[in-house]
Amino acid sequence: MTKILDGIRVLDLSRVFAGPAATQVLGDLGADVIKVEPPGGDEARYYGVTQEELAELGVSPSFIALNRNKRSIEIDMRRPEGKALARRLALKSDVIINNFRPGVMDRLGLDYDSLIAENPRLIYADFSAYGREGKLSGVGANDLALQAYSGLISITGEPGRKPVRCGTAIVDLHGSLALVSGILAALFHRERTGRGQRVESSLLHSAAHLMSYFYTEYLMTGTERAPMGTANHLSVPNQAFPAADGDVVIIASTNEMWRRLAHALDPEALDRPIFAEVFDRRRNRTALIEAVSDVTSKLTCAEIVDRLSKVKVVVAKVNSVGEAAMSEQLAAAGGYVELEQNGRSIKSVSAPMIMSEIETPEAAPAPALNADAGDILTSLGFEIEEIVNLTETGVIGKTTGKVA
Amino acid sequence: MTKILDGIRVLDLSRVFAGPAATQVLGDLGADVIKVEPPGGDEARYYGVTQEELAELGVSPSFIALNRNKRSIEIDMRRPEGKALARRLALKSDVIINNFRPGVMDRLGLDYDSLIAENPRLIYADFSAYGREGKLSGVGANDLALQAYSGLISITGEPGRKPVRCGTAIVDLHGSLALVSGILAALFHRERTGRGQRVESSLLHSAAHLMSYFYTEYLMTGTERAPMGTANHLSVPNQAFPAADGDVVIIASTNEMWRRLAHALDPEALDRPIFAEVFDRRRNRTALIEAVSDVTSKLTCAEIVDRLSKVKVVVAKVNSVGEAAMSEQLAAAGGYVELEQNGRSIKSVSAPMIMSEIETPEAAPAPALNADAGDILTSLGFEIEEIVNLTETGVIGKTTGKVA
Repeated sequence: MTKILDGIRVLDLSRVFAGPAATQVLGDLGADVIKVEPPGGDEARYYGVTQEELAELGVSPSFIALNRNKRSIEIDMRRPEGKALARRLALKSDVIINNFRPGVMDRLGLDYDSLIAENPRLIYADFSAYGREGKLSGVGANDLALQAYSGLISITGEPGRKPVRCGTAIVDLHGSLALVSGILAALFHRERTGRGQRVESSLLHSAAHLMSYFYTEYLMTGTERAPMGTANHLSVPNQAFPAADGDVVIIASTNEMWRRLAHALDPEALDRPIFAEVFDRRRNRTALIEAVSDVTSKLTCAEIVDRLSKVKVVVAKVNSVGEAAMSEQLAAAGGYVELEQNGRSIKSVSAPMIMSEIETPEAAPAPALNADAGDILTSLGFEIEEIVNLTETGVIGKTTGKVA
Repeated sequence: MTKILDGIRVLDLSRVFAGPAATQVLGDLGADVIKVEPPGGDEARYYGVTQEELAELGVSPSFIALNRNKRSIEIDMRRPEGKALARRLALKSDVIINNFRPGVMDRLGLDYDSLIAENPRLIYADFSAYGREGKLSGVGANDLALQAYSGLISITGEPGRKPVRCGTAIVDLHGSLALVSGILAALFHRERTGRGQRVESSLLHSAAHLMSYFYTEYLMTGTERAPMGTANHLSVPNQAFPAADGDVVIIASTNEMWRRLAHALDPEALDRPIFAEVFDRRRNRTALIEAVSDVTSKLTCAEIVDRLSKVKVVVAKVNSVGEAAMSEQLAAAGGYVELEQNGRSIKSVSAPMIMSEIETPEAAPAPALNADAGDILTSLGFEIEEIVNLTETGVIGKTTGKVA
């Protein structure tokens, strides 16, 4: 197996979602990711699970989903010896990643200037809430806060009702790939120049990128879009329709597509002059949605998907999480890696890019808290006595082997 | 200015959203992006605008938002000479990107095997709907189809009502960064080994990555989450609340944060034993939401944001698109580049990563259709007579200078 990031060591001080999601992709690409956890561990280990589930699973599903291919060490960075240890690790790393509030890295003795002075090849990655400059740079935030701040909530929901959030943490996860892109660009640059650099991304930059075409539209025309349920303003039909056993989305943006749709479903009801042209379909939107719904509600999802995909009209079932997770297509397209977590064999969504030089994707489970402290320090050239001393004085964790 | 991707030529055959969004980031990082457009241009040039707007703006805002820092050439690839020209360009490129349905690149004479045989350093990037393997690999799709297929719609919306889509094209845009990450990883690998490779991503992989922690939860515990408006299952309060002049989201996940919130807003109404512990707040969820709403609805958004951010409770106004686009913070944090498009000075959302080795981000406007045909071919070593011949025979466009 070729590891694209062979020999690249990533020191990961980040917590919860965006940072850990980013370092998982780097680990999937073959980097050696050292996850530094505070005493007690990344709080995401215990996120969104009940006590009973935690007892059974050992760690939260979201932690498992975003922390494979990493090694864990628990360091108490409130103590001077812990800060010193983190600095020694940083100086032996290729990439360091943090998502602390501004100023914290400086207080930890891990400021950019002094690290880059000693290790000019270092790539120093900050992931913040609102960026490093501006009035809000010191303010904390999370995915939901940036869904709100960016206007994303304002365009999501049903017409005429209070808007809603997007159900998954898109600002975090999109930000994770922004950070990965920046780090990979910096690694490429270092390969050509020998120099490291500072790379930043933030929830704000991630959310703005997701909203970019709405901002351009507003800035050029003053238009602000409103929530439209599953529909959008680009064309009709372009939304979910009821089937006998669920819902399907159907998109037919051109006249040609619309005619193919009409003939595949019910030409008498749908291939009518009032729906013939793009402009007719927009003007007679309500009548069209009613007419299509009347037809689709008598058919099953499978039947609609079958008939429409045959005539190259874009169609998809509105799947539940379970249906989506069990999708044969996702497995066939290489969307899963298999790994063994706490003695259970589980499937985990792979990195969202497939590279022909990687023969088999990596799949080590999420690490137990502090499981790799000894290995990490040994491989970085620490003496056994030092490791024993750090453990006995509680600078690093004693909890090696705890369930993960 | 340092161009991170100096000297990297990207031949971009992709259309509409994910591919063009990816190549814009590569252009922002300094690559020479050649946008190959079919006769008449990328359909995104005319997307979602009325005839009047098109006459005024020359091109759609979404095209402007996602196509800066590129050069355009219009090639008729239905003709053998057009296919031959595209192949010559591919052999002189570092990266080629397409989002055609499977089989189309082969028919164009741009198959991976023959290109890589002649240009072993080539990075060949496919962006597809459902991946290159599996029963659905030949089926077309778009952002909405994958929001449906992936289960993302099923967790977005109001409780007990039909679910909705996320208002922006998150699957496309997240996929764009997956593709960028894969391409940058391949460039890094090429720098170390001299070899190119095939890189793939898809709407399916992008959507699955966004949903990954929900799939892991389902696969481990059988739990399927339901839409919760702006709320989520992790903690209470963690949602939007009404203010006197709008809405704000408030997240206080720990007991400590909750107490700070209660004291900053209204200790008498909120600092009560029935809300004291995490578990109390989940059990008395309805009462808590009512109590907080009573308090917040008497205050302005600005007041709530001010009081809560002072005590480090996560809070943000639910902004409209216009408020978000005009955000001072976004400008201060380097979230915009300025450029001149059709004689108008406009701001456009920058790439979502900031790199210290780039002094000033690039900002060339979206190109007019075919505007750079002569430049592109000259810089690639074509003779003037060849260029004249290609133009006169209609293999490349004659429309140079058309408004963009």
